[in-house]
Amino acid sequence: MKSILVTIALGASLMVSAQQKTPVYLDVTKPIEERVENALSLMTTEEKVALCHAQSKFSSKGVPRLGIPEVWTDDGPHGIREEVFWDEWDGAHWTNDSCTAFPALTCLAATFNPHLSLLYGKSIGEEARYRNKTVLLGPGVNIYRTPLNGRNFEYMGEDPYLSSRMVVPYIQGVQSIGVAACVKHFALNNQEEWRGHINVNVSDRALYEIYLPAFKAAVQEGKAWSIMGSYNQFRGEHCCHNDLLLNKILKQDWKFDGVVISDWGGTHNTDQAIKNGLDIEMGTYTNGLTTKGKFSYSSYYLADPFLKGINEGKYDMALLNDKARRILRLVFHTTMSENRPFGRFVSPEHSEAGRKIAEEGIVLLKNDKQFFPLTGKYNKIAIIGENATRSLVIGGGSSSLKVSYEVSPLAGLTAAYGKDHVVYSMGYASGPSMYGREMRSKLNADSLVAAAVEVAKNADIVLFVGGLNKNHFQDCEGGDRKSLDLPFGQDKLIDALVKANKNTAVVLLSGNAVAMPWVDKVPAIMQGWYLGSEAGNALANVISGKVNPSGKLPFSFPKKLEDNAAHSFGKLSYPGDSINELYKEDILVGYRWFDTKNIAPLFPFGYGLSYTTFAYSKPTVDKADVTQDGTIRVSFTLTNNGKVDGAETAQLYVSKTKSAVTRATKELKAFQKVFLKAGESQTVTMEIPVSSFAFYDEVQHGWNVEKGAYQLLVGSSSRDIKGKIDVKIQ
Amino acid sequence: MKSILVTIALGASLMVSAQQKTPVYLDVTKPIEERVENALSLMTTEEKVALCHAQSKFSSKGVPRLGIPEVWTDDGPHGIREEVFWDEWDGAHWTNDSCTAFPALTCLAATFNPHLSLLYGKSIGEEARYRNKTVLLGPGVNIYRTPLNGRNFEYMGEDPYLSSRMVVPYIQGVQSIGVAACVKHFALNNQEEWRGHINVNVSDRALYEIYLPAFKAAVQEGKAWSIMGSYNQFRGEHCCHNDLLLNKILKQDWKFDGVVISDWGGTHNTDQAIKNGLDIEMGTYTNGLTTKGKFSYSSYYLADPFLKGINEGKYDMALLNDKARRILRLVFHTTMSENRPFGRFVSPEHSEAGRKIAEEGIVLLKNDKQFFPLTGKYNKIAIIGENATRSLVIGGGSSSLKVSYEVSPLAGLTAAYGKDHVVYSMGYASGPSMYGREMRSKLNADSLVAAAVEVAKNADIVLFVGGLNKNHFQDCEGGDRKSLDLPFGQDKLIDALVKANKNTAVVLLSGNAVAMPWVDKVPAIMQGWYLGSEAGNALANVISGKVNPSGKLPFSFPKKLEDNAAHSFGKLSYPGDSINELYKEDILVGYRWFDTKNIAPLFPFGYGLSYTTFAYSKPTVDKADVTQDGTIRVSFTLTNNGKVDGAETAQLYVSKTKSAVTRATKELKAFQKVFLKAGESQTVTMEIPVSSFAFYDEVQHGWNVEKGAYQLLVGSSSRDIKGKIDVKIQ
Repeated sequence: MKSILVTIALGASLMVSAQQKTPVYLDVTKPIEERVENALSLMTTEEKVALCHAQSKFSSKGVPRLGIPEVWTDDGPHGIREEVFWDEWDGAHWTNDSCTAFPALTCLAATFNPHLSLLYGKSIGEEARYRNKTVLLGPGVNIYRTPLNGRNFEYMGEDPYLSSRMVVPYIQGVQSIGVAACVKHFALNNQEEWRGHINVNVSDRALYEIYLPAFKAAVQEGKAWSIMGSYNQFRGEHCCHNDLLLNKILKQDWKFDGVVISDWGGTHNTDQAIKNGLDIEMGTYTNGLTTKGKFSYSSYYLADPFLKGINEGKYDMALLNDKARRILRLVFHTTMSENRPFGRFVSPEHSEAGRKIAEEGIVLLKNDKQFFPLTGKYNKIAIIGENATRSLVIGGGSSSLKVSYEVSPLAGLTAAYGKDHVVYSMGYASGPSMYGREMRSKLNADSLVAAAVEVAKNADIVLFVGGLNKNHFQDCEGGDRKSLDLPFGQDKLIDALVKANKNTAVVLLSGNAVAMPWVDKVPAIMQGWYLGSEAGNALANVISGKVNPSGKLPFSFPKKLEDNAAHSFGKLSYPGDSINELYKEDILVGYRWFDTKNIAPLFPFGYGLSYTTFAYSKPTVDKADVTQDGTIRVSFTLTNNGKVDGAETAQLYVSKTKSAVTRATKELKAFQKVFLKAGESQTVTMEIPVSSFAFYDEVQHGWNVEKGAYQLLVGSSSRDIKGKIDVKIQ
Repeated sequence: MKSILVTIALGASLMVSAQQKTPVYLDVTKPIEERVENALSLMTTEEKVALCHAQSKFSSKGVPRLGIPEVWTDDGPHGIREEVFWDEWDGAHWTNDSCTAFPALTCLAATFNPHLSLLYGKSIGEEARYRNKTVLLGPGVNIYRTPLNGRNFEYMGEDPYLSSRMVVPYIQGVQSIGVAACVKHFALNNQEEWRGHINVNVSDRALYEIYLPAFKAAVQEGKAWSIMGSYNQFRGEHCCHNDLLLNKILKQDWKFDGVVISDWGGTHNTDQAIKNGLDIEMGTYTNGLTTKGKFSYSSYYLADPFLKGINEGKYDMALLNDKARRILRLVFHTTMSENRPFGRFVSPEHSEAGRKIAEEGIVLLKNDKQFFPLTGKYNKIAIIGENATRSLVIGGGSSSLKVSYEVSPLAGLTAAYGKDHVVYSMGYASGPSMYGREMRSKLNADSLVAAAVEVAKNADIVLFVGGLNKNHFQDCEGGDRKSLDLPFGQDKLIDALVKANKNTAVVLLSGNAVAMPWVDKVPAIMQGWYLGSEAGNALANVISGKVNPSGKLPFSFPKKLEDNAAHSFGKLSYPGDSINELYKEDILVGYRWFDTKNIAPLFPFGYGLSYTTFAYSKPTVDKADVTQDGTIRVSFTLTNNGKVDGAETAQLYVSKTKSAVTRATKELKAFQKVFLKAGESQTVTMEIPVSSFAFYDEVQHGWNVEKGAYQLLVGSSSRDIKGKIDVKIQ
């Protein structure tokens, strides 16, 4: 016979009796690999398969039974995309999802400032976290191969070293907030034309030296927790299930232990998806009919067909376990991590970060007779051009944003100079997406030009604000540009403006290079990119001289399209014959091509002016003879010898004139952005591992550091070399 | 001149430089009150006001700038409601929100088992947490005043002591998962008829003794982090902004430091909402036109009008700060708490919890000749009645659920007895909601009865599974039942079934008492409530004898409606004259009325049979004379003197025959559920503080423990007293 005492307060004792021992997978003090194994051991086959495919447009299942959260992805890479309906692309009309738009990644690359990349990652990571996202779909590091690529604005330019240095801190920033970065698009997705199927053929050298380094840095240094497979094919297999790219290079050689996520709808084959390294299949549409006549995610390649194959013994459980482990690992790094921060959304700090990145990314291309900064007293400044007022965060495909605010260039300049001193005329109209040109020309192009000319005539200063926009066939996912030219009659308009008023400067907002037939006619040109919420404020600060521009071009501007490497070999080299494409320029991408082929670009890689000037002393090295595993230190003194404070990005290129293989005339191996007060000097030392001089040896299938003579070139751009030093590798 | 060393790996040093000191409000090691004050000090007036009203159907804003999360509420109280569109009531067609349905709270109350209430709270809290909810809108503890109340099934019965003991562990369970419980509906929302405006008048005694104790226990013992104001008025003020209820009783007397949330659309006046204790206004519709012609949450009483009033100095900032503090406190307890668990969703443990609660809550009302359990070999068991197959988790208003699964009684019994031995006939049809009766009678009532009778004739056993359902004017929010009778012609059907087969038992699924004109004609009756996902399994387990029933009625079943207290005084007492209502029965609610007025109920409060029998020894007390602040221990031996294991809920009532005020004949003051193996005995000791003998003294405005003689009654139900002891309070 037992005795029971009933008291009024049952609570306390009940609570104790209800407590259970925490299982390992929920124990944040345990190593992640232990938690992964414990969770995996508790899961059914169905639960594992459910991790591997979408359940809605942007989410995939967790393990509800075990309390393992779902994975919620979100575009990326310039701000946090609005909420959409469960299985539709339309926005879900929430009112809490108007984000901060950060500058496009081309602008970030143009800062040449990894500190700002960290700030960018941390800021956008905070926005993603506040919105309860697990994975941010970005950053993008596909190499700028052709100025026609509709998606260049989401990437970091033409140089593998620059993009590697910039992508790593972005990832570290995002992931420091407990949100996974998803580096994209792996790999060779360097155009939008036929992106869904075009089969890219490229040499091993170009692959390893040009197209993979940024991804490798993202994985090995940035420790990215996920990566996105690209739409295109590579050597006959789609990149979302490409044995060489995913199994051999990414997971085996680079030891990537994260998650490979398909681009939306980029999966095409169950067998390959299972065996060739894809972990989560996401979709553009629900691609199968159920018995009820509705589309369903359960018919995805990595859904029911995968489960069936496992259950029938066609596929080894180890294949499924590997995918599940990777996804669990990502979850434990993010939503189930200890003390995950809470993030922030649309905070003044994020606006300030965006503005600072924008200000440092703006590139001053031409500035005759110190046209900029506009510091005088002006009766009238005429602002001409649609991009002065058009939203440039909307459109462009998946990176389109619903923003809390966007300061237009006109608004920013009006705030800076006063509304009585600023007058606006549209000058050109792009019209709706896709059919823009035709409609414009049929409508009112001439009358818009005439009205703008009238305004320009009576102004002290004319600022033309044009460029591209996010319409289809401009800077937009899903299609490439049709030519290098400025669209919508802008060239004709600029000519007319210059005739009306010689004090006409051009501000281009775009993510791509454009032809500039009027380049010698205008006194000043500024490349402003897509600058996000703070666009107008950043532009006004640079134009007014509050901020001294310090951006450098992350890609070359060609004088004409045919000067660009990809466009020098006919259709098979770009855009391909609709089935295959062959990168005939091989390693000679961007400035490597212009320099090696002695083609003068319109504006070279690494180029950008300042309101001040900088002097470089003769560089020195710590030793002229180095071993293959050694390190070289290059030093020089940089002096701001102008009258205003400013920043210079000093660049170090390596050149090997005699080589067993074709070499680019020079390759960027280090850079450093230095802020100097007017009159200030500073010793800059760059430490370069000799291993970075290697070329990819297609015979040996590995990196090869040739011995012998090299030249180190210190410059202000790839075409403005300030000093040279010879070194010898023993 | 300074020196800079550039290395390839910038990451590590960058990370350090980007780290900032954690502000106090984000520091989980700091006391919550410090975090609240720090956050408050950083917020603008607009941000504070934004906390105080809805931004969508179920959410209110956080402080995005500071990373303070939004508050996401969700019905409650029997499972986690599906996701709805941002500003519509329709489900948003997500596929990840099919929940576990737990038994209705009447069933939980019928278990008389606080351990199961803790388990319930913990389980549903886990489901809420997995779905990222901040606040679970439940439990409900409005007192069962009339069997017509459409929402009784969401509450815990007619007794303030029982509901107090059951509500506390539910809250502790939910909140142990880092999800706030929201106790509802405070207060006096004891009917659905005219709920939006009916002005309830009730004495202070009835208020304090009957209608408030469960809320007080929820706040003071359960430490509920939020409470929901009710729709109705009390003494001329709506309860969502009722000075007496919210300011004086809840916040001043009970020292509630949590959040008062309005019922959806229950706010009617800005001035009262601001001053009378409401903290968050939620809405049924967006109630104002904006300049754009669209409805908007910004026109809510606690939105723009509040902000305007503060800015114009009409309202003291202290009023706003108090609300903001309370909301911040809730957020720090939940989404921003340290090591918040991750929850679970649709886990086997939750199904098991639901089944166990269902099994312990089922009440065996009648069992002539041991009709139940059905342990024999049966050729055919006829299951008759719509409720054997109808979903009973859908409907009923805000507690309607989209479930992962629901085992119907027919499915459960078929699994238990084999499909060859079970035959089903519908017998009656309720038709669509609201117009059910008319349509049914016009359609096929007679043919359904005839078909059922045919099936019944040829069966060994007939189980009629009927009762109410979640249609409008049944057990459903927004309306009361129109009579005590079983609807849809069930009485007539039961008569026909009994005539066809005398082995006909009745299983009623409902959240309310019903009239049983056939009570003497059937051998057995089981009250099965709404049992959630595991309904059929739980019922089958009890019917088949796998589980010995142990539920007790948490409210009295009257023989006829007029026997019920609220219905004994005419229309003004129920449902009121459409404007006012007067609770004329005062404290004599439920069994207090039946006992005091010597009206025999159909089945009394606390009543429920078992498959075994229990014997009570004569009770003893530790002392017969006690002081007013003393404690009495009542002991007795309880013996399972039957042949199967089982549980008995022993009840202790107190009676004061001579009193300065009207007293109920008896009042429940303690209970204990004891599980005993067949033949086992156990000493049960109940400890009762004398303070619980008090009545609420309307002259002194406080609790008054009268001295003198009391009787302690130990019983198996309120009408089956096994032993009495006299005690004297000095």
